[in-house]
Amino acid sequence: APVSEVLFFPSPVTCTEALLADPLAAAAASSSPCPCLLPHGESALSRLLRRLLSARRSLELCLFAFSCPQLGRAVTLLHRRGVRVRVVTDSDYMALTGSQIGHLRRAGIQVRHDERGYMHHKFAIVDQKLLITGSLNWTTQAIQNNRENVLIVEDAAYVTPFLAEFERIWKEYNPT
Amino acid sequence: APVSEVLFFPSPVTCTEALLADPLAAAAASSSPCPCLLPHGESALSRLLRRLLSARRSLELCLFAFSCPQLGRAVTLLHRRGVRVRVVTDSDYMALTGSQIGHLRRAGIQVRHDERGYMHHKFAIVDQKLLITGSLNWTTQAIQNNRENVLIVEDAAYVTPFLAEFERIWKEYNPT
Ligand SMILES: [Zn+2]
Ligand SMILES: [Zn+2]
Repeated sequence: APVSEVLFFPSPVTCTEALLADPLAAAAASSSPCPCLLPHGESALSRLLRRLLSARRSLELCLFAFSCPQLGRAVTLLHRRGVRVRVVTDSDYMALTGSQIGHLRRAGIQVRHDERGYMHHKFAIVDQKLLITGSLNWTTQAIQNNRENVLIVEDAAYVTPFLAEFERIWKEYNPT
Repeated sequence: APVSEVLFFPSPVTCTEALLADPLAAAAASSSPCPCLLPHGESALSRLLRRLLSARRSLELCLFAFSCPQLGRAVTLLHRRGVRVRVVTDSDYMALTGSQIGHLRRAGIQVRHDERGYMHHKFAIVDQKLLITGSLNWTTQAIQNNRENVLIVEDAAYVTPFLAEFERIWKEYNPT
């Protein structure tokens, strides 16, 4: 059945190391449980990470704000696995402290940003078939404190127009 | 077929008087075209207004920011038509100049707001069956200038959890 899921935030803080560790480390870890003091159950953030990490071929990100370290690690991990990652972001937010954009660029991920106006989207498209979108900016502040929603939609009626919007923005923004 | 629609913003400025006029005035207007200088075609804003104005029984609004006058008029019109309108909003934004919340309250619409935290949702539920949600804050600035998205979804898999989220927030926030 096609995926249809809704996540609400704020999300309790949980350990996401098992999701974000590389496969060899994860295999080692599975024999010895993580010693950290955080809860290790599911949370809205861990569910969001799982959906992102399901990417096998492509990931488009169109994000006003991106500073959450766990989400940054997930995107970098996908890039290292050979997934084609493309990111567009808002130039005003990009310069702020804690932005993940610099890390992504240094990892070799393609990032473009607007020169004017206000790019307020917060969506991701996984393998051209799964849309992840909502009110949530990808910041720790929003994830842990705000009332937010994220829809996960596997339906071409929504994915196709969002892909077209991504391609419009990708063409319009200058590569830098 | 169930509604599945995506709106992207910014929206060109168009005249929405025909949509927002009361029925008698609208009937009179249909014989004489509106004399204003704005374009009179469809736009993302006019499509959003049409979806809202389709409400016959209930409208739940959960909005971080609400200052767009046309959307404020649409909500007031629905209230006058006997639709049960309930609004929750963020207290920080509510106090800003141009907020529609004061108008809604003076019209007799029930409004509740949070006391702490950050209510960042931007969704509406029409007749408990149509979900309208996305990145768009209901401000003229966002509608006319920002890159934004709105999904319109008629699918219980999404509507039911959003209704439950609305009822949680409605109970939690103080009536004032
Ligand atoms: Zn741990
Ligand atoms: Zn006009």
